[in-house]
Amino acid sequence: MNTSHLSSPNKLERRLAPLLDLLQKQSVVQSVTHRQQQNRADVIENLLQRQQQAAIQREVDKLKSPDIAHLLEMITSDKRHIIWRLLSHEVAGEVLIELNEAIAESLIEMTLPDTLLPILETLDTDELSDIAELLPQDLLNRAKASLKANERNWLEQTMSFAEGSVGDIMSRDCLIVTETISINEAIELVRSNTELPPQTDKLFIVNNLRHISGVLPLINLLRNPVHSQIEQCMDKDVVTFSPTDQAEEAGQAFERYDLISAPVVDSKGRIIGRLTVESIMDYLRERAENQALAKEGLSADSDLFGPIIDGAKERWPWLCINLITAFIATRSISLFENTIQQLVALATLMPIVASVGGNTGNQTAALVIRGLASKQVHRDNITFIYRKELIIGLMNGLLWGTLLGLFAWLLYQNTMLGLVMMMAVTINLILAAFIGITVPFTLDRLNKDPAMGSSVVLTFVTDSMGFFLFLGLASLVLI
Amino acid sequence: MNTSHLSSPNKLERRLAPLLDLLQKQSVVQSVTHRQQQNRADVIENLLQRQQQAAIQREVDKLKSPDIAHLLEMITSDKRHIIWRLLSHEVAGEVLIELNEAIAESLIEMTLPDTLLPILETLDTDELSDIAELLPQDLLNRAKASLKANERNWLEQTMSFAEGSVGDIMSRDCLIVTETISINEAIELVRSNTELPPQTDKLFIVNNLRHISGVLPLINLLRNPVHSQIEQCMDKDVVTFSPTDQAEEAGQAFERYDLISAPVVDSKGRIIGRLTVESIMDYLRERAENQALAKEGLSADSDLFGPIIDGAKERWPWLCINLITAFIATRSISLFENTIQQLVALATLMPIVASVGGNTGNQTAALVIRGLASKQVHRDNITFIYRKELIIGLMNGLLWGTLLGLFAWLLYQNTMLGLVMMMAVTINLILAAFIGITVPFTLDRLNKDPAMGSSVVLTFVTDSMGFFLFLGLASLVLI
Repeated sequence: MNTSHLSSPNKLERRLAPLLDLLQKQSVVQSVTHRQQQNRADVIENLLQRQQQAAIQREVDKLKSPDIAHLLEMITSDKRHIIWRLLSHEVAGEVLIELNEAIAESLIEMTLPDTLLPILETLDTDELSDIAELLPQDLLNRAKASLKANERNWLEQTMSFAEGSVGDIMSRDCLIVTETISINEAIELVRSNTELPPQTDKLFIVNNLRHISGVLPLINLLRNPVHSQIEQCMDKDVVTFSPTDQAEEAGQAFERYDLISAPVVDSKGRIIGRLTVESIMDYLRERAENQALAKEGLSADSDLFGPIIDGAKERWPWLCINLITAFIATRSISLFENTIQQLVALATLMPIVASVGGNTGNQTAALVIRGLASKQVHRDNITFIYRKELIIGLMNGLLWGTLLGLFAWLLYQNTMLGLVMMMAVTINLILAAFIGITVPFTLDRLNKDPAMGSSVVLTFVTDSMGFFLFLGLASLVLI
Repeated sequence: MNTSHLSSPNKLERRLAPLLDLLQKQSVVQSVTHRQQQNRADVIENLLQRQQQAAIQREVDKLKSPDIAHLLEMITSDKRHIIWRLLSHEVAGEVLIELNEAIAESLIEMTLPDTLLPILETLDTDELSDIAELLPQDLLNRAKASLKANERNWLEQTMSFAEGSVGDIMSRDCLIVTETISINEAIELVRSNTELPPQTDKLFIVNNLRHISGVLPLINLLRNPVHSQIEQCMDKDVVTFSPTDQAEEAGQAFERYDLISAPVVDSKGRIIGRLTVESIMDYLRERAENQALAKEGLSADSDLFGPIIDGAKERWPWLCINLITAFIATRSISLFENTIQQLVALATLMPIVASVGGNTGNQTAALVIRGLASKQVHRDNITFIYRKELIIGLMNGLLWGTLLGLFAWLLYQNTMLGLVMMMAVTINLILAAFIGITVPFTLDRLNKDPAMGSSVVLTFVTDSMGFFLFLGLASLVLI
């Protein structure tokens, strides 16, 4: 058997290797050409470069569009442009919608509108709505002009839904039939439909008022008697979404009920779009990445291979907040400079108290953030969680505080210093648990991302209080 | 139209509300009973309790199994047991496989083997393999005994694949037909098959050697002439997986190629299982949660509503590591106790240097971890990333170091102190960028989770070096 048509996606890296090699050489050739511009060897260099281009083109042609998008995400921006320019309109369009937003945006920026327009015209309404917000307004208007009136309306409608809502990620195409036709007629409809929406696993069934009344999985189209009416065979227990639902919650429903597609309906039950597992997966992955980066104050669109200056600037807001909070936190130290002068050991031990608090608080926060995301934590059980985490803070505080106290006592032969250490650690751990719940829970109540910035606020409190408690207790007890 | 059959999953919380209310009362009734055990009112209380039970049962019966699982995840363990005992074998089995592992395990532990066995016997091989590792060995053996020989073999085979591999999450049931039959015959097969595997979107086609040769989406079963041979209609460009592939990479392929199901084949191309978007989504969500918690040293199975002592113990390993690293980091301070005694301002400023370093390092690490997960960062472009991040570190170090230096100068009227601050911040930021790349990249090279523990090592280095650089420079320049 010839298995060459079987593609094993884990071999993607191996398939990309020859192309990456060529790109490596390409840049060498270019830099050589640059140095010897006045030289006779120009012609040969030129030829060599053109040969390279052709070889690159051949390799690119072997790849599917999503693989080209992946390739573009792993190379530097100068090489991205070499590949980008080689793509046909059709392929460039497919690549554009697969790309990470930051990279898509940079490619759009550096491409002339007149080159971009024919690329955009290869996209359907759903695809265009995916990248619409990355396009300059005038270009978007020109691209819209090539759409039919109803498509244009739909595009404007979806663009009006909030980011992260079901309306924002739903697609337009769905297969809708009325409940009064027979299985046979429905099969005929599927057969005659020239372009079926991707990931169609079921038909959406509507009644004579065009309200949703059921769904029929494709497989049941095959398994029911051909003359029976759709109404008798359809599944009436339908999971539907409203365009204003949160995409996050829709994702949980897709997981819970193992959905592949589901209708999006308005308040009257009229179908206005379709949600697919594909867009849900895209959304959930982006969100997961987003949250991990947001915790460190970065946006999900950060381009690891983009310009250095952008990378540096992107860190500024967070760095600035961090500097301010660190500065304020250390102000509590300056209150006790006298105490420190009398017992320098305090300066050595105080960062430990702060660090243990930060660590514990972040653990609690991570648990609460996950609980909030999966809807396990809510208003009714938050007191239970407070009680539990505060008791854990107390227990761990006493246990590890005693241990640290013993260490401090042994190290500096000072019993009172050990006691101060123990008390400061215990109180700071309880405080850390309290803040670790309060910050994400409050952010969630305010409809903000509970992960965003929680670690900054938390570290600020545990640092300030760590220093203040330890030095304050020391100046009361020791000096 | 009666729309009562339409379920909007975002209303789940509202649907659960009456049940949560009942549970709240239930515990009140129970505690009252307990207090007045010797009282005459016992009989009435008992009756009341039985009424409550019946009311709870009615509410539970209204819910689908995945919703019951969700409910169990959001209530405390005593209430979990009340619900669990009310479920039929069939429903209990469905709930068990939907549950978070930690909670499933605790329910299994507290249920008698003889009660559990009939529940396990309602599960099919795929479902049993999902929870097999949570079961005590003897119970698993008893459950296996009720399987057919080929099912038992399959179960043992999948359990032998490593966690996080495709083999670990694949399922057994797939619809396989030979390429020589006609479309009509294939339709007949689908019709006569009494139990079709869930999420079946395509048929897997094999040749006479039982090697995979193509796939046929169900929709094309409808759209091709009924007498044509499968071989002529099938899609020969098949994405296949090997059972030893990483589930993570399979997830990327599912996203990239918008798959719903795909065959898992052995080295010869024989189909040994099927991978569905459902199991991929489950895996990816678990992994994302896992990573967020692993960063804080917690396991994904942490049960927010479990016993307090487990919650406390679970934090120990990390807390212990944190204490040790914090202790070592502050040892560098003790080297300079003399210097601090001469200029106490140093004790106030040194935590800022450490904190800024930790912040920057965590930003770089978060970007690299994402890049590694999406395969954008690899051996060939790591030097580019080092160069870029080190330059960003230098730029931001000079910029913010100068600012901090100015502050220190103004605050303490000491020019040299300002200079020391500037230099220490700059060097620490460069160092932080270096560690922020090196730690996750090295972990990945060693086939470990790049997120795991990266922030501990990082904070350890940036803290130690922050203190050491600042105090060391100060003792050289100032004293």
